[in-house]
Amino acid sequence: MRNEFLIPNFSFLTFERKVTMDIIKPRTLSGFMELLPGKQAQFERMLSILRDTYSSYGFAALDTPVIEDAQILLAKGGGETEKQIYRFQKGDSDLALRFDLTVPLAKYVALHCNELAFPFRRYQISKVYRGERAQRGRFREFYQADIDIIGDGKLDILNEAEIPAIIYKVFRGFGLNRFQIRVNNRKILTGFYAMLDLAEKSGDIMRTVDKLDKIGPEKVKAILLDDCGLTDAQADEILRFIAIRGTNADVLAALEGYACRSELFDLGLEELKAVTQNLSAFGVPEENFAVDLTIARGLDYYTGTVYETTLLDHPEIGSVCSGGRYDNLAGYYIDRALPGVGISIGLTRLFYVLDEQGLLNPELPTAPCDALVLPMTADAAPSIAVAEALRSSGLKVQLYGEQKKFKQKMAYADKIGVPFAILMGEDEISAGKCAVKNMRTGEQVLLTPAEAADHIKAALSANNGPIILEK
Amino acid sequence: MRNEFLIPNFSFLTFERKVTMDIIKPRTLSGFMELLPGKQAQFERMLSILRDTYSSYGFAALDTPVIEDAQILLAKGGGETEKQIYRFQKGDSDLALRFDLTVPLAKYVALHCNELAFPFRRYQISKVYRGERAQRGRFREFYQADIDIIGDGKLDILNEAEIPAIIYKVFRGFGLNRFQIRVNNRKILTGFYAMLDLAEKSGDIMRTVDKLDKIGPEKVKAILLDDCGLTDAQADEILRFIAIRGTNADVLAALEGYACRSELFDLGLEELKAVTQNLSAFGVPEENFAVDLTIARGLDYYTGTVYETTLLDHPEIGSVCSGGRYDNLAGYYIDRALPGVGISIGLTRLFYVLDEQGLLNPELPTAPCDALVLPMTADAAPSIAVAEALRSSGLKVQLYGEQKKFKQKMAYADKIGVPFAILMGEDEISAGKCAVKNMRTGEQVLLTPAEAADHIKAALSANNGPIILEK
Repeated sequence: MRNEFLIPNFSFLTFERKVTMDIIKPRTLSGFMELLPGKQAQFERMLSILRDTYSSYGFAALDTPVIEDAQILLAKGGGETEKQIYRFQKGDSDLALRFDLTVPLAKYVALHCNELAFPFRRYQISKVYRGERAQRGRFREFYQADIDIIGDGKLDILNEAEIPAIIYKVFRGFGLNRFQIRVNNRKILTGFYAMLDLAEKSGDIMRTVDKLDKIGPEKVKAILLDDCGLTDAQADEILRFIAIRGTNADVLAALEGYACRSELFDLGLEELKAVTQNLSAFGVPEENFAVDLTIARGLDYYTGTVYETTLLDHPEIGSVCSGGRYDNLAGYYIDRALPGVGISIGLTRLFYVLDEQGLLNPELPTAPCDALVLPMTADAAPSIAVAEALRSSGLKVQLYGEQKKFKQKMAYADKIGVPFAILMGEDEISAGKCAVKNMRTGEQVLLTPAEAADHIKAALSANNGPIILEK
Repeated sequence: MRNEFLIPNFSFLTFERKVTMDIIKPRTLSGFMELLPGKQAQFERMLSILRDTYSSYGFAALDTPVIEDAQILLAKGGGETEKQIYRFQKGDSDLALRFDLTVPLAKYVALHCNELAFPFRRYQISKVYRGERAQRGRFREFYQADIDIIGDGKLDILNEAEIPAIIYKVFRGFGLNRFQIRVNNRKILTGFYAMLDLAEKSGDIMRTVDKLDKIGPEKVKAILLDDCGLTDAQADEILRFIAIRGTNADVLAALEGYACRSELFDLGLEELKAVTQNLSAFGVPEENFAVDLTIARGLDYYTGTVYETTLLDHPEIGSVCSGGRYDNLAGYYIDRALPGVGISIGLTRLFYVLDEQGLLNPELPTAPCDALVLPMTADAAPSIAVAEALRSSGLKVQLYGEQKKFKQKMAYADKIGVPFAILMGEDEISAGKCAVKNMRTGEQVLLTPAEAADHIKAALSANNGPIILEK
């Protein structure tokens, strides 16, 4: 409320009535993640990797409103969305908070399609809202980190081939090696079911097959027979198909055996080959990528390549990055074919799970600064000058201004976990130097400000480990 | 809605019913800023400067929920807040969207005070919500970029002295030179009014004096006489006081003339001297700083140093960065003295005004990438490899995958405003090189990927102008 340059005297916060007021117990709503500074620093590192990686592939940053017209967000309507959405009136307006970043993107592209260049590539890393039942590890406010590439009428398969490279760079950026990007193509699945005369039932079948990892083949078969009404032969054929395993080359070779029986299948196979054949050019190692015919993604709007990403040592987390190709982004808002491909990372939940499982690297500094300058003399000017000199060299530096005993100052340095304390006493000042204390080793050296900057930077860069630890 | 690793089949978005659906006209709510990609790139640059500058002074990133318990946000209650706040029920919960970042900070510090180290320094750059009357240039969703330093019981004046340095670095980071940080101290004002036996009326007087720039001294005097009930002599004394002008040394010398008549005044003068005396150590030039006795800030909770910042060539914009020292951050939530000092930048409105007035530097690239790689051959692998090589050198690179005519490809490059196009034809590929076309000059050179990276980086760094242009 401080910055009110149109009506400078306008005020929400007056503490005039403080004397008579009651104290209200502070709390943060359940289902809302609010981190302490050290944890927030770890979260910020992940945000930074995401921003940098998405940007490096030429995605434009996008920032849409949290609040939208409820009619627009609920254009599809029905189902869980209506129950979970935060919806409210303000004046005559029927408003709601976004529950994902895809619907606002559809609105944005439909609204601005004549001003955008297609393919339009955007990333958005923002909070979304779902009033779900409160439950440990489920969040009502959470970050999604999305990229999408939207074409006008057409979109080349090369865009689908590029997505695994971006996923790979993100998770390598987090410090991981043991993850796998699992890829399939919906045209292959739909074409295959058409071969079995099961085109009508393909949605139900895919949703069932998607549960294979969780419930196993016997239960999948039981559902296919009992709920989907398949014959025993059809169910066996499907189980044989999704049991195809091996290297990417093995799986592609097995798929060739089904070729020439469905145009859609053949097209899907061509697409899958296009996605896999450029992996090495994109720098994605074979071991981080697998064609996996069990992947379908539940959403009916995917029409081509679909993606899931699992941490190999933590399959219980499920897919940490998913998405796929769709043919019609904005059909609710505009009569124009806007096909696209995109992925999403549910960052808040991913962070929560990584933290719960102790996978966040505790060795990385989480202090808000690299160095804490402690003035030991009445005149703070020399300490200020040293702090400014260190900042201009690129370091994050806090000046500690409180009049406290030395022991209390060092206790503060310990508590914030700062890597270096800079002690500025009479002797240091008169020598034009500063005492640089490594808070971890206890080692203390007398250096000029320029030397101190180099000394600190060298130590920090040596401690530049991964954000996520593989155990 | 893509990433649902607990319930993978759960879906909001099914396009099954697409055939029968009506088209809903897309729109963005009025009062909500939604930028096209080029403008968003300019906005992101300002966000980046703010994050980097705040971090460099050792402020920890903080991220509090957008939704809070309405009772907590409205602890103070009454007035404009209740009318403007977005408040709604969800189940049994009385919820509201934050209308600033100070109240959530107060809640956070009260809630976590035993886990935080004091002084606690945090920055938060986040959206806040006020359902104000729709009006050109007024926003219902807007970014505030805040820093605060919170002490436990006490907070040294050195923290107040540091704030102008941070404001200075931010606006220099934006590329500005022609701005002034105007500083006053509320203790001086309150002490001065006490000397005139006007302590009871000091709030009303300060709010009146705050209008001096807008309405001039005659009207200020009229209000002081008619509405505040001052005597002619008292009003003249006040006008004489706030007319004190000159260099910082001049103003401080004039203030010495009022010393030893009010303890509070004397304390305020000591504080003001402490703030001004360290300016050069902090690297703030005299011309960017002014002691200004007319600054009061409307908010009654400021108790010491107060800050405003104006663009010298654009006084009509008003203060673009304001704040001050307060004695009690979280009195509504906890019985513990938590004094602090903070400032806020209303970033959305600032950006809007800068853009309206044509002050955003149009020379800075706003493309989402530095280079656009255009494959000219059927096999995209060599183009992919070049794109990856350029990315690994730190460049932002988009691979253009569409099957279009050369002219259309170049039209796309023009439309997104990319600085460089990389043409990958047979000749370039067989020579192990790429054709690097400067889209501004038209110059085209044949280079290896490593040379191309250096060539592009050199050109980009030469075009590293200010975000805001001074005219």
